[in-house]
Amino acid sequence: MRLLVAILSILLWSSAGAQVLPSWNDGGAKQGIVEFVKAVTETGGKDYVPPVERIAVFDNDGTLWSEQPVYFQLAFMLEQVKAAAPKHPEWKDNPAFKALMARDKTELMKMSHKPVLALIGVANSGMTVEAYDKSIRDWLATARHPRFNRPYTDLVFQPMQELLAYLRESGFKTFIVSGGSVEFMRPWAEQAYGIPAEQIIGSQQEVKFEMKAGKPVLTRGAKFAFVDDGPGKPVGIYRSIGRRPIAAFGNSDGDLQMLQVTAAGPGRSLVLIVHHDDAEREFAYDRQSHVGKLDKAWDEAKARNWIVVSMKSDWKKIFSFDK
Amino acid sequence: MRLLVAILSILLWSSAGAQVLPSWNDGGAKQGIVEFVKAVTETGGKDYVPPVERIAVFDNDGTLWSEQPVYFQLAFMLEQVKAAAPKHPEWKDNPAFKALMARDKTELMKMSHKPVLALIGVANSGMTVEAYDKSIRDWLATARHPRFNRPYTDLVFQPMQELLAYLRESGFKTFIVSGGSVEFMRPWAEQAYGIPAEQIIGSQQEVKFEMKAGKPVLTRGAKFAFVDDGPGKPVGIYRSIGRRPIAAFGNSDGDLQMLQVTAAGPGRSLVLIVHHDDAEREFAYDRQSHVGKLDKAWDEAKARNWIVVSMKSDWKKIFSFDK
Repeated sequence: MRLLVAILSILLWSSAGAQVLPSWNDGGAKQGIVEFVKAVTETGGKDYVPPVERIAVFDNDGTLWSEQPVYFQLAFMLEQVKAAAPKHPEWKDNPAFKALMARDKTELMKMSHKPVLALIGVANSGMTVEAYDKSIRDWLATARHPRFNRPYTDLVFQPMQELLAYLRESGFKTFIVSGGSVEFMRPWAEQAYGIPAEQIIGSQQEVKFEMKAGKPVLTRGAKFAFVDDGPGKPVGIYRSIGRRPIAAFGNSDGDLQMLQVTAAGPGRSLVLIVHHDDAEREFAYDRQSHVGKLDKAWDEAKARNWIVVSMKSDWKKIFSFDK
Repeated sequence: MRLLVAILSILLWSSAGAQVLPSWNDGGAKQGIVEFVKAVTETGGKDYVPPVERIAVFDNDGTLWSEQPVYFQLAFMLEQVKAAAPKHPEWKDNPAFKALMARDKTELMKMSHKPVLALIGVANSGMTVEAYDKSIRDWLATARHPRFNRPYTDLVFQPMQELLAYLRESGFKTFIVSGGSVEFMRPWAEQAYGIPAEQIIGSQQEVKFEMKAGKPVLTRGAKFAFVDDGPGKPVGIYRSIGRRPIAAFGNSDGDLQMLQVTAAGPGRSLVLIVHHDDAEREFAYDRQSHVGKLDKAWDEAKARNWIVVSMKSDWKKIFSFDK
């Protein structure tokens, strides 16, 4: 068994030259990635990094899968708030509830995230962690993306799946660092990205341990214990990984601080931004977008020579179902 | 390189029968461990668990290394509080500060943990995470255990090091789940236990991200964001691993809830308590101890047939330096 794995690894390895990142067009982005990986893995080279320090962090929404017309987790949460509404008559005068139910984007954008998060927190509080997990799986199994009419989990970016695999083959440990909740990613991230539950960092609601009728139970609280977005991302990385990444991948201003921390490391680093510029195959948005706004991070990418991937010209395919 | 690793693995594997847990005496504890590992790794067996679900969690203080006469991190923190005292004249009337400086155990035990933690938090707040890391490394390099007159990191239990390695060879992923701070374990846990920084779960002080003169900086706050002890341990496991462990190892009542959650899993589980009953080679303490009190968890171990390891009779050696 182990010998078989070793032989397969060698076979895969020797053919890797031709096969690296097959959905990426040749060009600056692909070249930058491959050169970086060669530099940090070449034993004896000046940029060599030992495997244990090869930490790569990926934002999820907009970097590994789509995030339009609304973050997919928000679509799930809308359903949850709707389902919980009969138990919360007090919500009828809550402006966040009214705006959510009316899908009133303008109104939602006018308010801070706080009342929306508070509502969402209350909607799933009191559930056991198992019941919450099941509610996510049930939703993922039936919900369809409004434009593509496919399960949301079909909307992962194939070039990024290849990049994740390529980095792992090169001795990297790959992590998700997302503003979304860890629970929302755990059921499918392993299959979609090859990233196990324990390598997913995200926002966290409070969870409480209790013994109930002799059985240990974990129950969700209503408050957020940690918001893993913007300046929260380097904090989440510090807490959960405890090492500065040498490669970081994002697509929006919410990733800026994670990219800055990675770029500020003492050795060579790879910092990359995915730019959504392909309205035909996916979506096109950046500085003016409410979802996945890319403004400050784009300026910084230009100033610091970070790699900016054009989905339109750098990627042969976006989704595995693309022709 | 990969072929070499595979060949070495096979060689190690085939000699494993004779070499498993060499510092463990034959007996119920060793037998219970080996039988469990065989059961969950036997392909096609009724208790088989796929590798990705083979999660093993270990308490640190008193389970993987010693914890007497005081938790080693407390010895470090005492030094830190002492060093910070000149900057905090307001402490001179603080009862926790007075008790700490007088090493007045009776007084310290009378107060709740809160004033002590609050003091410790303030003592290292405002430091960058790099400066804090350095202060830990410096202390570890020079401090000596009062009884053994050796670096604290010499006081790891060799039988547990062997157990960690044995589980990993059997496809387990091993984690530390400690009431101590992650930062205090990260500098040495990889070498001592083979557990990388990102597989250490522990208590966490607040950390804040800022840009200072164009550089990203993480600075420590004074408050605890999370206390990973007692009922906090299953919460820490849920947040960081997101999977119920199938094997858990502890030594005190602070580990009880982690052991309960592991034992309550749907399949076969291994739950083990290390009992400190060897005053000659290490320390002897249990129900009456202020440090590492083993009372409720011991009763539960007996009621539920968890494995209780006698350090005196189950372990040939405790430390690698034992004759």
